[in-house]
Amino acid sequence: MSEWRKDPIIDRWVVISNERGKRPFDYNINEVKKNQGCPFCEGNEYKTPPEIIAYRKKDSIKDRPGWRIRVVPNKYPALNSHSYNSKRRCGFFKSMEGIGVQEVIVESTIHESGLDRQTEEQVAEVIWVWRDRLLDLRRDARIKYIQIFKNSGYAAGASLEHTHSQIIAIPMVPLEIRQEIEGAKKHLKQHGRCIFCDLQEQEITAQERVVINSSYFLSFAPFASRFPFEIWIIPKKHQHDFIQIREEQEVKELAAIIKKTLRKILAAIPNSPYNIVLHTAPINLPEDVIFHWHIEIMPRFTLIAGFELGTGYYINPLSPEIAARILREKK
Amino acid sequence: MSEWRKDPIIDRWVVISNERGKRPFDYNINEVKKNQGCPFCEGNEYKTPPEIIAYRKKDSIKDRPGWRIRVVPNKYPALNSHSYNSKRRCGFFKSMEGIGVQEVIVESTIHESGLDRQTEEQVAEVIWVWRDRLLDLRRDARIKYIQIFKNSGYAAGASLEHTHSQIIAIPMVPLEIRQEIEGAKKHLKQHGRCIFCDLQEQEITAQERVVINSSYFLSFAPFASRFPFEIWIIPKKHQHDFIQIREEQEVKELAAIIKKTLRKILAAIPNSPYNIVLHTAPINLPEDVIFHWHIEIMPRFTLIAGFELGTGYYINPLSPEIAARILREKK
Repeated sequence: MSEWRKDPIIDRWVVISNERGKRPFDYNINEVKKNQGCPFCEGNEYKTPPEIIAYRKKDSIKDRPGWRIRVVPNKYPALNSHSYNSKRRCGFFKSMEGIGVQEVIVESTIHESGLDRQTEEQVAEVIWVWRDRLLDLRRDARIKYIQIFKNSGYAAGASLEHTHSQIIAIPMVPLEIRQEIEGAKKHLKQHGRCIFCDLQEQEITAQERVVINSSYFLSFAPFASRFPFEIWIIPKKHQHDFIQIREEQEVKELAAIIKKTLRKILAAIPNSPYNIVLHTAPINLPEDVIFHWHIEIMPRFTLIAGFELGTGYYINPLSPEIAARILREKK
Repeated sequence: MSEWRKDPIIDRWVVISNERGKRPFDYNINEVKKNQGCPFCEGNEYKTPPEIIAYRKKDSIKDRPGWRIRVVPNKYPALNSHSYNSKRRCGFFKSMEGIGVQEVIVESTIHESGLDRQTEEQVAEVIWVWRDRLLDLRRDARIKYIQIFKNSGYAAGASLEHTHSQIIAIPMVPLEIRQEIEGAKKHLKQHGRCIFCDLQEQEITAQERVVINSSYFLSFAPFASRFPFEIWIIPKKHQHDFIQIREEQEVKELAAIIKKTLRKILAAIPNSPYNIVLHTAPINLPEDVIFHWHIEIMPRFTLIAGFELGTGYYINPLSPEIAARILREKK
């Protein structure tokens, strides 16, 4: 049985899951298996739990070859989709059962692929799948937030090399999102506008941190970047929830800007591990809460050390202005 | 010139420092140099900036051999102790000059040493040095918080192998500390007591997460541990500020519990990288703010990945109850 536990002092939840992989010490072993043994390669569909959805050729059979993108349950989940919402309290320890849903999106049949190397059409399909899963998972009343993310490379936490992204749907709104909502509320009260809308306008005016400015989206190095070459992608039109992107043309353009931005980052720091996280509105966002979805790309060639863990602050050895200038010049 | 920058949306400060090491891409290169070339080995004192203080043999000369512990300025600081408190604002971007002090504490003349392998007397001297530096640095009116931490092993962010801890004194109270103060305030209002005092009492009663219970200190696996074998050490008597430990006997016992706890952790996961952070009260803590210093030891053999970065929450594959049981049995 896994469990959500709240830190007794601060507002931080942790999933405690002894079952994850049964043997916790395997957790750190790089399971990368090339082609043959890889559970995400075409032909090895039997190595994963049965697929949830897949984009596949007409007439191809579920859990058989013929797919382009496949969504499967995480084989070693820390959370359990069959748990009930049972809050517990012991002294001042709060916990609840390990409610949650963990899914893996296999983004391509090609083991060595990546969002930077796929065609824009393939990346667009990944975006459509993210949206499909966001729509489906929110029907579960226990779920309050759906975190879509990607770990690429060992140092970024990937345990399998084959290109994939992940979904963890959880029964609370994460601290990071609540902090962003707080910031947005404050700005709304003071200025009557969305802080993210104002931010991207200011970035476009300033130019110096912009990487790509396309018609629907902006990719830029954030003013207080935590990591060298950290880049955010944000819709220029106000959209609080990622599911609001529904036009073919928008998705196509988002695919292009994700792919191009990643290519530039990986041209600047070849083979860098990276994380991508999607920040979107919590499910059933009350009307007075303002949010604006965005994607954060975090290259992970610097390390999170004692200062960062102790303070929650970061030291970044490369200014976002220099990072953006370097990336603008890369193809 | 380095700069502190506040994230425009949330309350997170980042140091942007292009100068750190001049060439940012070296940042990630493991500089480990054995004995001969190591700037922290005895005989190589000329390789560091002049020492700030040292515990050394009578009649030995500053910046020459004969020391047991040496405190020197960080040779590649991201922050600058000569900066002035110049807050800037541009649109809704807040920043200020990169004020701060960065020091390195060389904990032993022996390259391969570590707090787990030093004598208790040596570890006690490290504690006295931490305290000395906390007392000295708070005289600087620009400094609001002094973060003492240790990175051991490459994955924990150590760029030099020779055993050392670090100090970063900064012009604001970190988010992590403010969150702990918030939690403590809430508890104080509700129960009239210090949350940390109550927490350690509850842990002693429950027993299941206790690793070592000595007369002055408790070492235990926290209820919502982020990392496998994460351990906190806390004074059983209420002390908000680390400088309040001043009895010889207390320091001796703290040295023993740090050393023994680390030995146990490293017996359970040999050669694991780890971080140690000291959480202590901010400088000039207003009277109504309650705090209780403690040390957090975080083994770093699991990775911080997209889920953690996206949400601020953690997945821990080993429960603190099992971790504590394993550690209690180790010598």
